[in-house]
Amino acid sequence: KNYFKLAVLPGDGIGPEVINESIKILDAISESFGYQFEYSYGLMGAEAIYKTGNPLPDETLKICKESDAVLFGAIGDPAFDNNPDAKVRPEQGLLRLRKELGLFANIRPLKTYPSLIEKSPLKREIIEGTDIQIFRELVSGIYFGEKYTDEEGQYAYDNCKYSREEIIPIVHMAFREAQKRRKKLTLVDKANVLDTSRLWRKICQEISAEYPDVTLDFMFVDNAAMQLILNPKQFDVIVTENMFGDIISDEASVIGGSIGLLPSASIGESNALFEPIHGSYPQAKGKGIANPIASILSTAMMLDYLHLEHAAHKLKESVEHAIENKYVTVDLNADLHYSTSEVGSFIADYI
Amino acid sequence: KNYFKLAVLPGDGIGPEVINESIKILDAISESFGYQFEYSYGLMGAEAIYKTGNPLPDETLKICKESDAVLFGAIGDPAFDNNPDAKVRPEQGLLRLRKELGLFANIRPLKTYPSLIEKSPLKREIIEGTDIQIFRELVSGIYFGEKYTDEEGQYAYDNCKYSREEIIPIVHMAFREAQKRRKKLTLVDKANVLDTSRLWRKICQEISAEYPDVTLDFMFVDNAAMQLILNPKQFDVIVTENMFGDIISDEASVIGGSIGLLPSASIGESNALFEPIHGSYPQAKGKGIANPIASILSTAMMLDYLHLEHAAHKLKESVEHAIENKYVTVDLNADLHYSTSEVGSFIADYI
Ligand SMILES: CC(C)[C@H](C(=O)O)[C@@H](O)C(=O)O
Ligand SMILES: CC(C)[C@H](C(=O)O)[C@@H](O)C(=O)O
Repeated sequence: KNYFKLAVLPGDGIGPEVINESIKILDAISESFGYQFEYSYGLMGAEAIYKTGNPLPDETLKICKESDAVLFGAIGDPAFDNNPDAKVRPEQGLLRLRKELGLFANIRPLKTYPSLIEKSPLKREIIEGTDIQIFRELVSGIYFGEKYTDEEGQYAYDNCKYSREEIIPIVHMAFREAQKRRKKLTLVDKANVLDTSRLWRKICQEISAEYPDVTLDFMFVDNAAMQLILNPKQFDVIVTENMFGDIISDEASVIGGSIGLLPSASIGESNALFEPIHGSYPQAKGKGIANPIASILSTAMMLDYLHLEHAAHKLKESVEHAIENKYVTVDLNADLHYSTSEVGSFIADYI
Repeated sequence: KNYFKLAVLPGDGIGPEVINESIKILDAISESFGYQFEYSYGLMGAEAIYKTGNPLPDETLKICKESDAVLFGAIGDPAFDNNPDAKVRPEQGLLRLRKELGLFANIRPLKTYPSLIEKSPLKREIIEGTDIQIFRELVSGIYFGEKYTDEEGQYAYDNCKYSREEIIPIVHMAFREAQKRRKKLTLVDKANVLDTSRLWRKICQEISAEYPDVTLDFMFVDNAAMQLILNPKQFDVIVTENMFGDIISDEASVIGGSIGLLPSASIGESNALFEPIHGSYPQAKGKGIANPIASILSTAMMLDYLHLEHAAHKLKESVEHAIENKYVTVDLNADLHYSTSEVGSFIADYI
């Protein structure tokens, strides 16, 4: 197969700027490798609310469902965050999209780049050689449980619910990944307090029988939040529920020294979405300073997912080439820096 | 008032060893300052389960309710953590005690000690001068909401619920603390997803009108988990709900370089409990290597709470004297180190 339908959702803030660079890269790849990518653009997030009143218009959902993969920029707008009474929110678009596409596993690889290690707030000896893969459950838990606020605003609740079927697939996925790596899987939970966590623990224990070569261990989320900073090298693959995954994966993103480098993949049975983890970063919008590498590496994850491993490999190599040659944005080099689009073009040219 | 009834709950793991040192200190204080402390010991946690089947025996609860303050060691035992089917758990004792005593606010001060700054996994320039006070809501939220696991183990849920009355007191407490400090309060929440977080945000906004000299801002918990490591100095007072507070306060404990130094206070209307944050640390039990300073500084927080400010001040000074003179346990000085009880005696002698 060398023809692919891609849904492209630039979204909010710096989303459109970084997605532009991903498209530039894909054009370069289609030229060098002879693949054909058809792009269908869709509205999403605050952009979509302003234009249509709906954070995930039907048309966008349709494009995504019919695609081989979705490239997504970022979501979020301070105008909504500071208004607790807003009835429609950009984030609802992303959450609904995850649910509708059944993207049950959010995968975040975390590595250190030798030339950037000094940028980390952590000491070199703590982080050097860190290589973690986080699997966060993405379509259940407290994000999608019943929510309620009474009319007088006297109380509210959010229910965190998990069924066996919601836990099993991502646990298998994480075990399989651990088998390909250093054969260690850590479940992060709060099994000393939560029933849902005890269900996760039980299911992990059961499934571990099928992966005798992988060592399974358990860590409470409060301890994991410490251990990720004290000794990140102890981790290989981590699997966790939705809310804990949101927190610890963002926390872990500081290890490498730049969140502007970190990609993610959200995978389902028959759909997948790829997005940089940095978010909409509204302060940087329109300034040409956003780091496009997280979006570009998300595109590389997409190529791997589409079984275009050669192209993915070449792209990752090109990114490393840019980083090692300090052809980077201001977040990585304050002295001699390039714009979002210069960095994108440099990488595209190398392909 | 110079007579005080103290409930003493040594608990599990290294709890008894560090509590011993706190008692040694209190004896020294009562001698120097002429106060009288009456100690009533109670069973709690795994210890209590082994001896009575109940993690919080009625007798213990009674002692605590009748006390002026509770000194608590630690809770937790790996035998329970690794058994998702255990019906009784040590942690239930602590959770029930918090609820019964109405300890709605868990307070954790975080500071760096000049002589220990090199022990931190974070770089000196990131952490130097950090001074944060975290207020974690302690008797509501997902910890105490309805929990359920069906008989076949097919699904489970944990409900996170908050009412106005549960949020208001701790928010006032945090605002008042901010007034005494650098006048900045940050609510950590997930208001882009959770109804309960939006309620927190709304109430904080309302209450902020009463504290015009304090700047209130909001931060999503995933971002806060990053910011605490990227730039901890930006924070003054943080207020947050129970589960987020558990995670970010443990995460933040790595900043100073030793969790063995960090005290906490849990405060209610008419009761209060003081405990080191390090937990039961079962691997160190009985070895005489546990750092008693976190427990001793928790005792200092208790003295402040009992309005024995002079004694509290003297005690904090004595601890700093021990640290600056490297009269510390192995976690702080691998070369020349002292035992738990040597450090406790050194501090007691200085009083
Ligand atoms: C935007 C928000 C709803 C989202 C989440 O919490 O899942 C984001 O933080 C993420 O991690 O992708
Ligand atoms: C032991 C456990 C139940 C407890 C909690 O999660 O509250 C502990 O982690 C703490 O922070 O005091």
